[in-house]
Amino acid sequence: MFRHVVLFKWNDQATEERLRRMEEELRALPGVIEQIRTYEMGTDVGVNRGNYDFALVAGFDSQEDYLVYRDHPRHRAVIDEHITPILLNRVAVQFVS
Amino acid sequence: MFRHVVLFKWNDQATEERLRRMEEELRALPGVIEQIRTYEMGTDVGVNRGNYDFALVAGFDSQEDYLVYRDHPRHRAVIDEHITPILLNRVAVQFVS
Repeated sequence: MFRHVVLFKWNDQATEERLRRMEEELRALPGVIEQIRTYEMGTDVGVNRGNYDFALVAGFDSQEDYLVYRDHPRHRAVIDEHITPILLNRVAVQFVS
Repeated sequence: MFRHVVLFKWNDQATEERLRRMEEELRALPGVIEQIRTYEMGTDVGVNRGNYDFALVAGFDSQEDYLVYRDHPRHRAVIDEHITPILLNRVAVQFVS
């Protein structure tokens, strides 16, 4: 499985409503981008200090399929409209498990 | 599933041998800590600039099981002996998917 893992730290513009809309938009992507095999996300539960706020763990059959997702217009739109405005920092890794 | 996701950035002490040993030690943990349900890891494939170097994505049945893993002496030993010496930065999130 080709894994795409992203951890997000939100800024102080990240209201509950904006976080809810962002998650709703992300959760809609597997219905639009057929290359997505697995798509898990969630807010940090707060058991450890110093963590980031939110995680997305996606799975694809191949690097090529991941790149289709990465550059897909709907994915780009979610980033531009719902993630970038509330983003303080973002860390990612793609790996083959 | 209770998810534990960690992304690592290595320092310049991270030789190939030390990275190999670190991964070997981590991959042995599911055989020692029965609470681990899924345990995927890997080195960043390099398709995006600015990524971190390595990811670990683990799954547990519950937060309690994750905490057994987090505080397990064998896990702590791998961190102290094989990760901390080569670690530049670490970012984590735990979430319920």
